[in-house]
Amino acid sequence: MIVGLGLIGGSYAKGLRHFGFRVTAIDRDPHAIEYALQNGIIDEGWTETNAEALADADVIVFALYPKVFLEWVKENGASLKKGTLLTDVTGVKSCIVKDIQDALPEGVEFISAHPMAGREVSGVENSDPAIFRGANYIVVPTEQNSEEAIESCKELGMLLGFAQISVLSPEEHDEMIGFLSQLTHCIAVSLMTCSDNTHLACYTGDSFRDLTRIARINDAMWSELFLLNRDALLAQMDKFLLELYRMRYMLEVGDVEGLREKMRLSTERRAVFDKKIK
Amino acid sequence: MIVGLGLIGGSYAKGLRHFGFRVTAIDRDPHAIEYALQNGIIDEGWTETNAEALADADVIVFALYPKVFLEWVKENGASLKKGTLLTDVTGVKSCIVKDIQDALPEGVEFISAHPMAGREVSGVENSDPAIFRGANYIVVPTEQNSEEAIESCKELGMLLGFAQISVLSPEEHDEMIGFLSQLTHCIAVSLMTCSDNTHLACYTGDSFRDLTRIARINDAMWSELFLLNRDALLAQMDKFLLELYRMRYMLEVGDVEGLREKMRLSTERRAVFDKKIK
Repeated sequence: MIVGLGLIGGSYAKGLRHFGFRVTAIDRDPHAIEYALQNGIIDEGWTETNAEALADADVIVFALYPKVFLEWVKENGASLKKGTLLTDVTGVKSCIVKDIQDALPEGVEFISAHPMAGREVSGVENSDPAIFRGANYIVVPTEQNSEEAIESCKELGMLLGFAQISVLSPEEHDEMIGFLSQLTHCIAVSLMTCSDNTHLACYTGDSFRDLTRIARINDAMWSELFLLNRDALLAQMDKFLLELYRMRYMLEVGDVEGLREKMRLSTERRAVFDKKIK
Repeated sequence: MIVGLGLIGGSYAKGLRHFGFRVTAIDRDPHAIEYALQNGIIDEGWTETNAEALADADVIVFALYPKVFLEWVKENGASLKKGTLLTDVTGVKSCIVKDIQDALPEGVEFISAHPMAGREVSGVENSDPAIFRGANYIVVPTEQNSEEAIESCKELGMLLGFAQISVLSPEEHDEMIGFLSQLTHCIAVSLMTCSDNTHLACYTGDSFRDLTRIARINDAMWSELFLLNRDALLAQMDKFLLELYRMRYMLEVGDVEGLREKMRLSTERRAVFDKKIK
């Protein structure tokens, strides 16, 4: 069962149904459920949570905004049957994983995961399991998780076609995501908003387009993700701001060798990040 | 004739020879000339400037670093025959265009241009006129230029297959390039050098890869370009730094509505930058 049938929830549903799994879904939006039923994305769907549907599910994937996810678990956790495995797709971990595990009844295990994939568009209409190909899937266990749940969660990532599956603690995950994902989105947004630059659109080359692709951003989701990972993100922003100030100073005083040294370090490091798997 | 047979010079040579033009070249590096002759990229080539070759050329394209370009013109300008049209590919304009025009003898016209294309690799071996497809070509005239020279320069851009050809003053050009190209390179470099992040390579998604693609950078060329456009680039860096600080502050104080408003503005503006021509 998928709870939250948007871009990611829909992509999970399509990917799993392809392997013959029975896939059900809950989403508050009747259009999402209707669309998914009409297009064969799910076998059955509801706009409200019901105990019967929950009891029927062996695995439940939550593809909700973090706060809604926590509320859902507090409200409906008691209806979950023993032995059900819960997992999620949430982009922040430290602030929710333990709270959710604590809110669940005995015998219901939650193993957190983060599929690092997405698109600039949202909604089940845009869902496509192809977004998982070549992407990373991160399992984020706590000391409360069983080995079996961790293994099942990894298998789910493999089934969905992720290129690489790794395991991180909630803290490691949030530091990594603060740097690789959230800081980059802050930069892209600031680049678009720092001056009225739309008259320059006709001169834009690929560099600028690449840097700002992610500046088209779901403001409700990302502002929530930023605030839930505030400390880790602030730390990453500070490191970046300091470094850009250093570069600005080198430029101001004409420190050519300093600038060149930074560029050489950057070139060397960036080579490590080249995509290995296409 | 091409002076400076690297990535861009070589791509010009290939593109022009494709249309049947006789293309010659000067480059200090004997390997570049040898490679170009062996691979049919040029008809004739020299490792030193010679008066006879210059007299033979109707159009000379300079694909040199800015300072080397200016030196070359001061040294060899007198050998140019009347009626020769000079153009270039230099990425900064205010600091060199008028100096070069002033250094030329009567009857030799220099019309500056900036093909906004490139790759992360350099050298004639990597040249390919396909990099011009879909890209912008900017003609940068001064009041000293004739209408004929401006038109010829535009035609050259069209022949090479650029998607869009526009005209800007040197000052407009440098402001635009400070924002769209140089600031983005500073950001990409700072993102790679702000912390030792290589252990995160295996978690990297497309957002980070896209933002740092240009962090692999030719340090000799870009440090020179940055310093030659220092004032315009510092102004752009300051605007960006201030904006990122504003966003940092909103995050620190938990100003959700402020963050969301920035994200909505960013999303709206970025839509204007979507590529029209593929």
